[in-house]
Amino acid sequence: MTATRPPLQVPADRVWTLAEEILTGVGASPEDAARVVDSLIYSDRRGVGTHGLIRLKFYVDRVRSGGIVPDATVELVRETEATALLDSGNGFGAVATTKVLELAIEKALKAGAGIVAARNMNHFGAAAYYATMAAERQMVGMVMTNVTASMAPTGGKEVMVGNNPIAFAFPSSDPSPLIFDAATSRSSWGALLRAAQRGEALVPDAFLDAEGAPSQEPDAVLEGGSLLPIEGYKGYGLALCIALLTGILAGGEFDSEIAHPYRDLSARGGNSVLAIVFPTDGFAGAEAFAGRVGELSATIRSGPTAPGVGRIMVPGDREDATARAAGDTISLEAETVEQIEALGAELGLESDLLEVAR
Amino acid sequence: MTATRPPLQVPADRVWTLAEEILTGVGASPEDAARVVDSLIYSDRRGVGTHGLIRLKFYVDRVRSGGIVPDATVELVRETEATALLDSGNGFGAVATTKVLELAIEKALKAGAGIVAARNMNHFGAAAYYATMAAERQMVGMVMTNVTASMAPTGGKEVMVGNNPIAFAFPSSDPSPLIFDAATSRSSWGALLRAAQRGEALVPDAFLDAEGAPSQEPDAVLEGGSLLPIEGYKGYGLALCIALLTGILAGGEFDSEIAHPYRDLSARGGNSVLAIVFPTDGFAGAEAFAGRVGELSATIRSGPTAPGVGRIMVPGDREDATARAAGDTISLEAETVEQIEALGAELGLESDLLEVAR
Repeated sequence: MTATRPPLQVPADRVWTLAEEILTGVGASPEDAARVVDSLIYSDRRGVGTHGLIRLKFYVDRVRSGGIVPDATVELVRETEATALLDSGNGFGAVATTKVLELAIEKALKAGAGIVAARNMNHFGAAAYYATMAAERQMVGMVMTNVTASMAPTGGKEVMVGNNPIAFAFPSSDPSPLIFDAATSRSSWGALLRAAQRGEALVPDAFLDAEGAPSQEPDAVLEGGSLLPIEGYKGYGLALCIALLTGILAGGEFDSEIAHPYRDLSARGGNSVLAIVFPTDGFAGAEAFAGRVGELSATIRSGPTAPGVGRIMVPGDREDATARAAGDTISLEAETVEQIEALGAELGLESDLLEVAR
Repeated sequence: MTATRPPLQVPADRVWTLAEEILTGVGASPEDAARVVDSLIYSDRRGVGTHGLIRLKFYVDRVRSGGIVPDATVELVRETEATALLDSGNGFGAVATTKVLELAIEKALKAGAGIVAARNMNHFGAAAYYATMAAERQMVGMVMTNVTASMAPTGGKEVMVGNNPIAFAFPSSDPSPLIFDAATSRSSWGALLRAAQRGEALVPDAFLDAEGAPSQEPDAVLEGGSLLPIEGYKGYGLALCIALLTGILAGGEFDSEIAHPYRDLSARGGNSVLAIVFPTDGFAGAEAFAGRVGELSATIRSGPTAPGVGRIMVPGDREDATARAAGDTISLEAETVEQIEALGAELGLESDLLEVAR
């Protein structure tokens, strides 16, 4: 069991620089290192710590074990006017997916729509980060990825599909785009590991044991169990569709073929990604679209609340408010800050992160 | 309360012809009438009776009340190489959405992808019917629509978003494409109305009353209550994203602006639709893609089952098996057959449907 320490508030620029130097120190180009760090800090700033700098040590360990190729070249496999397929060469997911979005946006500007996939890549952080790239160019962005299997098909007891996430981002007249990002599982491995660490029971109806029976015992789930999909067969079906639209479409791995990256640090990355991007001026018109998204968001937020509810949110509101409140600092677990300092120290990088942290 | 009668088995060709003659009798062209009937019988054959010929009387009533324009022309509003926006002119949803798919497939053949929306249309039946049109051309098809509001945003008590459905269809080396089609609500208005008719309690955790509190009382829900989205905020968020991708993108109505078509038969249709279509040869390759979808389906179906489960299915398996078992007949509620005969009789059409039904 781990004692719970309060999180630390760390200056974003200091941790950004140190994390970038760590990644260049293990072989990434400055540009690629900056992209990976930006994608991780995006999640920390938005209060989605599970997808943030907590992953940096894991990325570095995988580079050192040969699981991530830090200087991989993303290659174009084939393309049409509106589509393209890339191969990440087992590099960082953030690097490949940024190229996916850049190319999809470029194609959308010319043809009216861009649909671009990439295969053979590693973990990319939060899907929202990439969908937002489209929204910031006044385009609609959809981004999905497949991950290692963690859910059984409905009625089954063997994990086959990942809790594959999907994100949508929409241009809005609000200060931020409207962003939806959700996995297709009810709970998460993160919640499972935390419950196991703390010796707590799991939430009901979210996990199965190795026999396919519902379980609230972390140990029973960790020994060959699985996550339950959202809404049973709907979540299983949606996760499978995302797998077909990513791994199978890209000619990459299916979820159950993707090695568990934490259990085998040297396994090649087997994630695939798909982005669908298009400007709204081919439809309602850019200004009209963003204006209505903003108005509609305001209408929803100001609606009557159910008993005991303070306010109604539209997707992304909570994360956006967290990022705004964070200002120039990000909130990190003390253990994560120590890990980053230790990674830096191994590479001879000086740091005063722990000293300046509050 | 309605006494429950066993469903009738009706020859598909007889009911097809009569339904088509009814629609041409109220002003639809033979081509449009055939399309509407085909879309409805598709659902009946697949055991999804809620989206089948049970709707025919409602369609006819709406035509007679001015709510559906039976000879509307679907017009092109604007287009790019890969996208288009259509206006249905308040016609049948099946007619407009078929044009959406035809145009999306045409654009996908030229540009590599087709993204086409339509607005100002009426109910279109099952989204799966249209997504399948793409899969039958060896393309991936995604189809979504927005419908009149029936769900409150998470934390709210006023309905704002529809239980907007989304369908995916994938080419497969199996005899049928792999088809996923799901609404974003846990239960449905159909289940609510049936429980009210029968005086039964609703399933738990699927409905709210007018105050936003969970309810299993059909009457309390019917009086200003709502459906609960799948997985709470995830389903609400997904439904809202579908609304933005359909009504708002197409410059049509948002869900809460769509008149309830059953409560106001003369209200113009306010549904919008979006289809995203692309061939797989721009990615993994058509043969490789379909082959892996088929293999993967077989692997999933043959996996170990959880306690008490007979077999594992992939999305669409149940509906596909129902359609194959149906052969040349379809299963309809006796009340629906009587309704169709009565509609025919009003138009002077002879029918022996009830006589030949088993």
